Amino acid sequence: MRDINVSIGVDKRLWRQDIAGSRAHAAMLAAAGILSEGDAAEIRRGLDAIEAEYAAGGLVEDAALEDIHMHVEARLKEIIGEPAGRLHTARSRNDQVATDFRLWVRGAVDAIDAGLAAFQSALLTRAEQHAGDVMPGFTHLQTAQPVTLGHHLMAYFEMTRRDRGRFADARTRLNESPLGAAALAGTSFPIDRRASATALGFDRPMANSLDAVSDRDFALEFLSAAAMAGLHLSRLAEEIIIWASQPYGFVKLPDAFSTGSSIMPQKRNPDAAELVRAKAGLFLGAYQRLAIIMKGLPLAYSKDMQDDKAPVFEAFDTLALCLAAMTGMVETISFDTARMRAAAGTGFSTATDLADWLVREGGVPFREAHHITGRCVAAAEAAGCDLSALPLETLRGIDARIDDRVFGVLTVEASVASRTSFGGTSPANVRAAVAAARGAGQ
Amino acid sequence: MRDINVSIGVDKRLWRQDIAGSRAHAAMLAAAGILSEGDAAEIRRGLDAIEAEYAAGGLVEDAALEDIHMHVEARLKEIIGEPAGRLHTARSRNDQVATDFRLWVRGAVDAIDAGLAAFQSALLTRAEQHAGDVMPGFTHLQTAQPVTLGHHLMAYFEMTRRDRGRFADARTRLNESPLGAAALAGTSFPIDRRASATALGFDRPMANSLDAVSDRDFALEFLSAAAMAGLHLSRLAEEIIIWASQPYGFVKLPDAFSTGSSIMPQKRNPDAAELVRAKAGLFLGAYQRLAIIMKGLPLAYSKDMQDDKAPVFEAFDTLALCLAAMTGMVETISFDTARMRAAAGTGFSTATDLADWLVREGGVPFREAHHITGRCVAAAEAAGCDLSALPLETLRGIDARIDDRVFGVLTVEASVASRTSFGGTSPANVRAAVAAARGAGQ
Amino acid sequence: MRDINVSIGVDKRLWRQDIAGSRAHAAMLAAAGILSEGDAAEIRRGLDAIEAEYAAGGLVEDAALEDIHMHVEARLKEIIGEPAGRLHTARSRNDQVATDFRLWVRGAVDAIDAGLAAFQSALLTRAEQHAGDVMPGFTHLQTAQPVTLGHHLMAYFEMTRRDRGRFADARTRLNESPLGAAALAGTSFPIDRRASATALGFDRPMANSLDAVSDRDFALEFLSAAAMAGLHLSRLAEEIIIWASQPYGFVKLPDAFSTGSSIMPQKRNPDAAELVRAKAGLFLGAYQRLAIIMKGLPLAYSKDMQDDKAPVFEAFDTLALCLAAMTGMVETISFDTARMRAAAGTGFSTATDLADWLVREGGVPFREAHHITGRCVAAAEAAGCDLSALPLETLRGIDARIDDRVFGVLTVEASVASRTSFGGTSPANVRAAVAAARGAGQ
Amino acid sequence: MRDINVSIGVDKRLWRQDIAGSRAHAAMLAAAGILSEGDAAEIRRGLDAIEAEYAAGGLVEDAALEDIHMHVEARLKEIIGEPAGRLHTARSRNDQVATDFRLWVRGAVDAIDAGLAAFQSALLTRAEQHAGDVMPGFTHLQTAQPVTLGHHLMAYFEMTRRDRGRFADARTRLNESPLGAAALAGTSFPIDRRASATALGFDRPMANSLDAVSDRDFALEFLSAAAMAGLHLSRLAEEIIIWASQPYGFVKLPDAFSTGSSIMPQKRNPDAAELVRAKAGLFLGAYQRLAIIMKGLPLAYSKDMQDDKAPVFEAFDTLALCLAAMTGMVETISFDTARMRAAAGTGFSTATDLADWLVREGGVPFREAHHITGRCVAAAEAAGCDLSALPLETLRGIDARIDDRVFGVLTVEASVASRTSFGGTSPANVRAAVAAARGAGQ
Repeated sequence: MRDINVSIGVDKRLWRQDIAGSRAHAAMLAAAGILSEGDAAEIRRGLDAIEAEYAAGGLVEDAALEDIHMHVEARLKEIIGEPAGRLHTARSRNDQVATDFRLWVRGAVDAIDAGLAAFQSALLTRAEQHAGDVMPGFTHLQTAQPVTLGHHLMAYFEMTRRDRGRFADARTRLNESPLGAAALAGTSFPIDRRASATALGFDRPMANSLDAVSDRDFALEFLSAAAMAGLHLSRLAEEIIIWASQPYGFVKLPDAFSTGSSIMPQKRNPDAAELVRAKAGLFLGAYQRLAIIMKGLPLAYSKDMQDDKAPVFEAFDTLALCLAAMTGMVETISFDTARMRAAAGTGFSTATDLADWLVREGGVPFREAHHITGRCVAAAEAAGCDLSALPLETLRGIDARIDDRVFGVLTVEASVASRTSFGGTSPANVRAAVAAARGAGQ
Repeated sequence: MRDINVSIGVDKRLWRQDIAGSRAHAAMLAAAGILSEGDAAEIRRGLDAIEAEYAAGGLVEDAALEDIHMHVEARLKEIIGEPAGRLHTARSRNDQVATDFRLWVRGAVDAIDAGLAAFQSALLTRAEQHAGDVMPGFTHLQTAQPVTLGHHLMAYFEMTRRDRGRFADARTRLNESPLGAAALAGTSFPIDRRASATALGFDRPMANSLDAVSDRDFALEFLSAAAMAGLHLSRLAEEIIIWASQPYGFVKLPDAFSTGSSIMPQKRNPDAAELVRAKAGLFLGAYQRLAIIMKGLPLAYSKDMQDDKAPVFEAFDTLALCLAAMTGMVETISFDTARMRAAAGTGFSTATDLADWLVREGGVPFREAHHITGRCVAAAEAAGCDLSALPLETLRGIDARIDDRVFGVLTVEASVASRTSFGGTSPANVRAAVAAARGAGQ
Repeated sequence: MRDINVSIGVDKRLWRQDIAGSRAHAAMLAAAGILSEGDAAEIRRGLDAIEAEYAAGGLVEDAALEDIHMHVEARLKEIIGEPAGRLHTARSRNDQVATDFRLWVRGAVDAIDAGLAAFQSALLTRAEQHAGDVMPGFTHLQTAQPVTLGHHLMAYFEMTRRDRGRFADARTRLNESPLGAAALAGTSFPIDRRASATALGFDRPMANSLDAVSDRDFALEFLSAAAMAGLHLSRLAEEIIIWASQPYGFVKLPDAFSTGSSIMPQKRNPDAAELVRAKAGLFLGAYQRLAIIMKGLPLAYSKDMQDDKAPVFEAFDTLALCLAAMTGMVETISFDTARMRAAAGTGFSTATDLADWLVREGGVPFREAHHITGRCVAAAEAAGCDLSALPLETLRGIDARIDDRVFGVLTVEASVASRTSFGGTSPANVRAAVAAARGAGQ
Repeated sequence: MRDINVSIGVDKRLWRQDIAGSRAHAAMLAAAGILSEGDAAEIRRGLDAIEAEYAAGGLVEDAALEDIHMHVEARLKEIIGEPAGRLHTARSRNDQVATDFRLWVRGAVDAIDAGLAAFQSALLTRAEQHAGDVMPGFTHLQTAQPVTLGHHLMAYFEMTRRDRGRFADARTRLNESPLGAAALAGTSFPIDRRASATALGFDRPMANSLDAVSDRDFALEFLSAAAMAGLHLSRLAEEIIIWASQPYGFVKLPDAFSTGSSIMPQKRNPDAAELVRAKAGLFLGAYQRLAIIMKGLPLAYSKDMQDDKAPVFEAFDTLALCLAAMTGMVETISFDTARMRAAAGTGFSTATDLADWLVREGGVPFREAHHITGRCVAAAEAAGCDLSALPLETLRGIDARIDDRVFGVLTVEASVASRTSFGGTSPANVRAAVAAARGAGQ
């Protein structure tokens, strides 16, 4: 029983939050006249001492003291004696753990936001650097149209922007204080929940005591935001793995983010990218784990909820690590822009440009322009050359409305340069997007 | 191949959005001079006709025309001929489907928000009605302290408030237009993406064309918000099922939301509540389905994404149905307040009140008060009576600081009335919370 | 990078398997003449020494030595020097880790099977003890028909029988040796894979080297079997929680599997049952995690697979703990058979018996019998009594085919005694099922 | 309520099973003397008529008749009148639906097994055809060692073999009859459950009536086996997508399993492979959906279980479709063996062969051989040539134990030919594996 019940191995990570919560609670009790100033001072002294102890030497786990709250409480009693017992007036373990965990998740959101910002910063740097470098734009992993590498990297900047938005929204929603909800019903003591909420940086106290002790939305929302960020990282990781594969050869991974072997010193296995890709499983598994726990739980607190912290801690640690790894990878990966450019030119990737030219310059309806272009592509394929290398007469033989101005749009450089529509891939757009992102403090 | 590739059976639900998107695109092309006014008028006329047709008689599926976009396009060509081909200038199926689906999800969010608001309204009505009725407050499904039924219902109001917040945040984040991102790279036509975005009610165009066609965050975020709402509903459903069970007998389900049997006409199986509880599986399954699809997908569009719509449609339909069912159940369920009150009085549920009284009136430290209370409870258990029925001398024999004022806190009514701390369960608090919710337009 | 790459913290649990695998490999190499007898003896000596070391004092983690294979290899070199290098002939880390992990999972299956058997044993003991005790049989958590407690417990015996079958099937399927698949392609050394397979207790070597190093079915199948067992346990846990709730009062939990509080010494929170219920989330999350990792992985080995062990270890530890907890709970839980019997008699639970009597003795078609019974139930409800307490004339007033023999089937005892169809709930059936289970060695 | 409760739209697929179950039940009742021969004959006649009707014209859904059982029952009453009512003697909807669904899943397992066998057959054909064609063997998607294409395909044969084993095990475990468990407690009628079980092809009746009506393991096990098969297909789908990408160019997809575009007639988007890859999400989502439904459900039947069929039907249809698509793709895909062979020769893929040669012929310890090989690879990289193109003197300059026999192992053909260890990649092994598979009837 003890083995299944004890949680200190997991929830000891909440010690700072537990002490902060007790400090705020004691101060509020004193201000409300529920606790004497003397007792409050003793409690403050004791909590300071515990904080110093844990910060210096860590916490010594004692399975008999089940969880972090009991550890702090027991130690407080050793240090200050009887007044320790008064700290729990108008409070219960149910609102205490909800308070501690919310504070912890709030801190986790802030740390992840910093990690996301650093990742964005790396993307901006590399996007600017490669604003004008051409690579194949893929659909279905087939070469479709040329794009710029900077534009490709900025797509991840956009995903990350949404990720930050989701974490910020989660933070706003979770930043309410459960403290004072007591076991589940509130209390008859004249407590001031707004005061303790403010002291802990919460925006307000939660409005319903039953909800306050039985809600774990905030943890689920954190996991959901983490899962989405993890999915984005898995997509970039997959691209890096494919790009590093010999037939692509688009990137060379730095030693710090790959492993070689004594037998093949030239080889660079993209281990870090593979592990980041794998972590999508961890995030989604952690989310699923907690969601399943919460399914069908009657109000208010049930012990099932004790299992809320492990998946959140694990997801946080892993996401922070993945962000650090991907930031480092983006900063240091070496792009083989020559191979990228060469690949961009294969597969008649400027066919769309030819069709658009027919529409724009020749007044050909779009669908007809498509068919003409298809015939040109077939001719180029038959001739074993690129579209831009087809003789004008061949093109005119297919459609007489084509003239030599068409060669101005058939190179990959011309193609990307022309995509100046808002959000399009042109180098100028990329540079503007980078500048705008920087101007907005990302 | 056709069987696995064809999507019209699913995506035909996007027909209104597809027509709206085409209308906005055509208007923008005309305003930008890319399309003649005459062609634009023809296209408008054709789209109006198709809209009228589909609204009247539905769409006739043709597997050869794979998806909704091809259906509308083919029909437009039948109606207006050649100009139909010009509609696809500066557009591709990739940005078109992203636009359609975002519009659809935006509408789904609005519909769900209305459903959530109706559910809240039902909760407010019943909470007000039962603001003063006492029931057992449970932790671990053990009777812990008395609470009011109104307070219990208001806990679900709070959950639903957060649900609405999540959907609102998702709506804000998704309300950007992919239209004009074209296949993946933008276009060389001088389009005005802000204009088409505005025409469709989007806040702005998406900033990166690759992201615009490869992002499905908006669908995942919808599913994630739906899963959370579904989890909340599953908790209430579980409570209804337990409350309807004979040993509880807290509620009687209306005929409309239960089934009986010819053999046991008195029986009311809580079928609707059970089905709502089960749907938590559907929501979480739908979320996982799409999340797994997106894992590790390289940019930009991959056909895998075609599988994004089925889980979203299914989750939307199911959540709308669950909300309607639960709203109806909350509105019409009959609470047996006498049985609830009786159950609230068992299990020495006012023990905490006794302990709090000792702290407040007797100046006893909290932890000591707990131990004294424990002895009183043991005495009551031995005597086979409730705490409030113990003779004063018995109580004083346990601790001399107890006097006859204590009986003022030992009834369940006194207990709930005393919980006036912010968010506590007192009838006055419940009424205030209902009034505040109504004042805020919920 | 090191932080994300290092796995020794997790895979150190494979040390016994790693040593066993190396021992078998060395013996095979020597028998095949690839390794000299002297070198083989040295390697054997070194592995014995490492095994003794780790068994005595544990393994000292060194992050520079990344994983368990490197730890053992490095230590072997320290102990025996140069011959250590020969151990890796015709082997790679890819087949080595697959071998180690299969061996570990095989052992885990055996341990879980023992845990399941112990759980079954506890169920049999209690089922036999309560073969004749009547409780309500629920559908929709509504009292439906009386059943025996022994029969109810035997339902879990049956679930557990299937669980054991699934683990046994998984064991058969996984018991093939990857050793000798080398990196991915097999080897040109004249190795004898059957010999090393046999030495390690495998049934045969795996048939395809690419499959051997890239397959993780065995881990997924373990997780899937664990998830199903966990779901079964969650159902029993839910029942215990509901049964322990005051309005039911069917069970009293032993102190060892519940927690009380100083303030309510009579209270028994079913913490252990709640935690077991919660673990369904962990099992399903772990399964999902690994399944997502494997989705879309190209052959052969990818580093993603390094993340296979954490979910399996966690699921194993947790399932073993849950089985121990539930076994203990089943062994020691106290059933309040009087309350159960009383509850079984409510809700006109013998209505089906009346209907069946009408069919059997009165020759009434089933559906008509249902309607007659419905009228009798309504009469009893109106009279505020049980079916067996209705006067004969009332019953005959409803249908003249009823005579006084009917009272022989209207008590809950008569009801359960009559259900003697194969698999039915009669006490005799339960005793026979227990005896049969014991005869079959469960 | 009706909207959420009605299941006929889903469970109508069970009509054949429902009729078969009723037929077996009626025959058993008659044999046991519970039903007259005349009534039994009428029921048989009626069921035959319904079967003919549904087979000819399908079933007309009537929402008032909730589910398939009510539809058949109501129609039977229309056709044969009063005796229809006797069919339900000693049976309830709970055991009826469990029986129907098990029969259906059993049939689904058989259909999937046939699909898996056809897929294996296609793999064998292509593996034999390409037994000797060399391609790069990848680890981390990096070229590691040459393998044969046949060997690569046979890895999927092995996965599929395990898949078939899992479905077969599931079939054995599910093939027990719930019929006669009645509502939950068995019955007092002298029924012969073995007889009806045998008539339906079940191996035996289920041993516990509560378990019989509340167990859905069989559906979960089906979904779990489907998920694993789906994961295997997703891996091959990913490979096809990568291989079809221009920088690889290893395969050309047949028109039937890809889509082109009018503008790029040469392009072949691997749509079918992408959709198969995406379906891994559907299978895992379906599994999670049902697993979550079953979590924490008290015995016996709960309405939640009605949601068991949709995920199973969906997973079955999808897996059958995916298998057909992948079988077709494997049969008709065109491998560019020249490009594969060329890619296999890059990246110094025979470095391991050199190291193995040093060990085997030079008696060099494995780890030392690795370092020598590393220096040779570095020399080849510096010289811009392949290992086999390095002059002997260069090699001997690195290690004097190298002689000209080494060139016999440095080509990719020599490499794969030498991997003759059991399960290794040599062409001879592949041919033997194909022959063995065929001999075993796969």
